[in-house]
Amino acid sequence: MAKKSLLDRLLGRNGKENIAPAPAAPKDNRIPNMTNKTLLEQLDWRYATKKMDPAKAVPQEKVDAIVEAIRMAPTSSGTQPFELFVVTNPDVRSQICKAAGDQTPITEGSHLLVFAAWDNYTNARIDEVADLNVKARGDLPLIGQYYGNLKANYVPRDAEVNYAHAARQAYIALGVGLVAAAEQEVDSTPMEGFDPATVDKILGLKERGLRSVVLLPLGYRDPTGDWLLQMAKVRKSRETMVTLVN
Amino acid sequence: MAKKSLLDRLLGRNGKENIAPAPAAPKDNRIPNMTNKTLLEQLDWRYATKKMDPAKAVPQEKVDAIVEAIRMAPTSSGTQPFELFVVTNPDVRSQICKAAGDQTPITEGSHLLVFAAWDNYTNARIDEVADLNVKARGDLPLIGQYYGNLKANYVPRDAEVNYAHAARQAYIALGVGLVAAAEQEVDSTPMEGFDPATVDKILGLKERGLRSVVLLPLGYRDPTGDWLLQMAKVRKSRETMVTLVN
Repeated sequence: MAKKSLLDRLLGRNGKENIAPAPAAPKDNRIPNMTNKTLLEQLDWRYATKKMDPAKAVPQEKVDAIVEAIRMAPTSSGTQPFELFVVTNPDVRSQICKAAGDQTPITEGSHLLVFAAWDNYTNARIDEVADLNVKARGDLPLIGQYYGNLKANYVPRDAEVNYAHAARQAYIALGVGLVAAAEQEVDSTPMEGFDPATVDKILGLKERGLRSVVLLPLGYRDPTGDWLLQMAKVRKSRETMVTLVN
Repeated sequence: MAKKSLLDRLLGRNGKENIAPAPAAPKDNRIPNMTNKTLLEQLDWRYATKKMDPAKAVPQEKVDAIVEAIRMAPTSSGTQPFELFVVTNPDVRSQICKAAGDQTPITEGSHLLVFAAWDNYTNARIDEVADLNVKARGDLPLIGQYYGNLKANYVPRDAEVNYAHAARQAYIALGVGLVAAAEQEVDSTPMEGFDPATVDKILGLKERGLRSVVLLPLGYRDPTGDWLLQMAKVRKSRETMVTLVN
């Protein structure tokens, strides 16, 4: 039997009422990029917001667009080996905030995204991916062969190796999600500084074969209260990071 | 003494002539997004291109914009713990193609991006990051403290743990780079299926304390020759991937 998660215990419930799969995305959630900023302008605008304004909530359609971009992010062999938790519940966010060294964007933003990677690749998980491919593309022999090979390669590996691979895929989606937030002019704060075991307990992840990887609070910057906003953005020079092999 | 890399041996040279740090980015390389596509439209347009048209090269200003987006991608504590290799040399790409199960976008595209993560965190590497912060933001006590703590936490850890962390940061940049390519209407093919040890040898990465993590060929799709282009894009439903905690 799965243990009751801290979340359930906190809220005095059996873990069903308030944790729900997200409804299907609305048919047209392609919010136009009204400002027509380029990607580089968006990357310049965003920063790891340290102080969010608790009075401003991110509108649902913007959250939907960010979540949708994360869902559409490419992953290795199309496995999408992670799940996304969209946490608005104040008690739950407060607990996660404590497990993350009291980084206040978690509670002062309006939404907390938790990326949770598969703890392992299993035959059942890969079969589900193969089935989804068959549904979308038809029952091509190629699909069965491809995912058959994938199972033969992945499933015998050490769980830690597979988790590490799954976590990297979540980071692709994190990169896409960061851009999506900036496109929507929503502030976000990528965070690795938290105790994953505690966050796993709070959200009941272990029972679902998941491990928390990275957090992304969403909200709006408090321009007067954020010390980081006043500081220059720091990036290595192109000469330092990039090598041409011509 | 560092061994001569396969690249050097291949090209019969001492490894200096053709491997060069990239020049500084042009002052204004913010190519407008002429099509004004939203991020979701860009993510829908892109796919892991299987057949590129070798007759079409990606213009330099588009490569610059993609590289610049990768450079601007956020990373943990601003460490940017990876380097990017932009490979156009046909012999080198041909060698890498062989090390990647003959995936032809590597040679049929015009540019190959190789993301290479730090093999470890060291005091010297973190000091460089701290110095860059001091240069941009002033010699604030906070900066010395912060990166001092980071060194105390990271440097004693196992090299594999540190490499795994660095590799994840490269994957954030991969996610951003994928979006940047799509914004520029450039096709790209993220690839993990290669022998990293061989690619490390080809590019002389080990001597530089780097390990190849992921490849991203850039080019233009061959619409008639690409079997994947004809197929439906497959993604899990939002209900499957996303859980709301309200």
